[in-house]
Amino acid sequence: MKRVLDRNQDKAEQIRSLLKDRHVRMYNLISSPGAGKTTLLEQTCRHLGGSLKVGIIEGDVYTDRDAQRLKQYGFPIVLINTEGGCHLDSNSIDGALKEFDLDEMDLLFVENVGNLVCPSHFDLGETAKIAVVSTSEGDDKPIKYPMLFRDARVVVLNKMDLLEYTNFNYDAFVKDLRQVNPNVPLFETSLTRGEGLDGWYRWLEGETNA
Amino acid sequence: MKRVLDRNQDKAEQIRSLLKDRHVRMYNLISSPGAGKTTLLEQTCRHLGGSLKVGIIEGDVYTDRDAQRLKQYGFPIVLINTEGGCHLDSNSIDGALKEFDLDEMDLLFVENVGNLVCPSHFDLGETAKIAVVSTSEGDDKPIKYPMLFRDARVVVLNKMDLLEYTNFNYDAFVKDLRQVNPNVPLFETSLTRGEGLDGWYRWLEGETNA
Repeated sequence: MKRVLDRNQDKAEQIRSLLKDRHVRMYNLISSPGAGKTTLLEQTCRHLGGSLKVGIIEGDVYTDRDAQRLKQYGFPIVLINTEGGCHLDSNSIDGALKEFDLDEMDLLFVENVGNLVCPSHFDLGETAKIAVVSTSEGDDKPIKYPMLFRDARVVVLNKMDLLEYTNFNYDAFVKDLRQVNPNVPLFETSLTRGEGLDGWYRWLEGETNA
Repeated sequence: MKRVLDRNQDKAEQIRSLLKDRHVRMYNLISSPGAGKTTLLEQTCRHLGGSLKVGIIEGDVYTDRDAQRLKQYGFPIVLINTEGGCHLDSNSIDGALKEFDLDEMDLLFVENVGNLVCPSHFDLGETAKIAVVSTSEGDDKPIKYPMLFRDARVVVLNKMDLLEYTNFNYDAFVKDLRQVNPNVPLFETSLTRGEGLDGWYRWLEGETNA
């Protein structure tokens, strides 16, 4: 296991260096199944349409369901099926990157396999990890899955529109999140409605112009 | 990987044979994070209180949060922390079983790590896998994670109370589920309200008396 992680890390560092050379930022989206990664990408693609050149690496266990949802936005998409694997690794990203023209790209989004555990252990060479979590999953996720929430550069708390129908304790969530990651930006969204995304767009644009 | 799975399978078969000898049924609960496994156990412990002798093996990455929620019901609980691992394996179950008096037990519930991928690959020697999925995760889970839904002996569709606030397509869900597992019993629940559990209890009691 240690050897697998070391090899993954070496390749990730090469990718990070390549992306830096080409001025491409890569965001690794990680969440539970169904928390809203694909919907976040749909909204973001719609918003960024004219202004930035975007690519998507879509990780999925077997199907192309999410890639199908995203192809209408006209950005290049590379699908990686893990064939039973529970996370992407830097080797598969390395292969996918060869399919893009990196000189014609500003942002690359990686939608990881829906899983809060292993995707946090495997560095893909990303600029930043983005954690997506939803109110309907319960407020205990930052404490139960601290690896992701500690490493995330942004946390999106989705399904705010469902909050009132659940037993999600918002104060407990924020307290636990701040315990593992005191200063991470937290954006509260209702993604199927396209609500709460202004902060996320501003963050993305700020990073892109940084 | 193949060697890991083979070794896991050998131990699982030993466990299955041991449990059969002792007339103990073991159910392996698998779901995404926050779909409702612990709440299903809370309701079930409350219901079975007087009638059956129950034990719980609680799998969690780092914390004892779920075990703490369950201890009030007075049933013996053994906690397995996987320390970063994304699934339980038969070796850890073998160790946990030594902590129970199996001659004083009818049912053993295993709450696996919240993850739809790897827990499906690792046989624990269980009598049956139970899939828990919730409406707020979206209707595409049976197709995107077919390993679990194909192997499950029961599917619990939870958070029916949230269905009307989501874009969950019930007919598409059932159609996809029937494609991978035509005859699996499907119980539709609102677990935080304790609703929709009669079929589950009847199934459990039928199996126990079989």
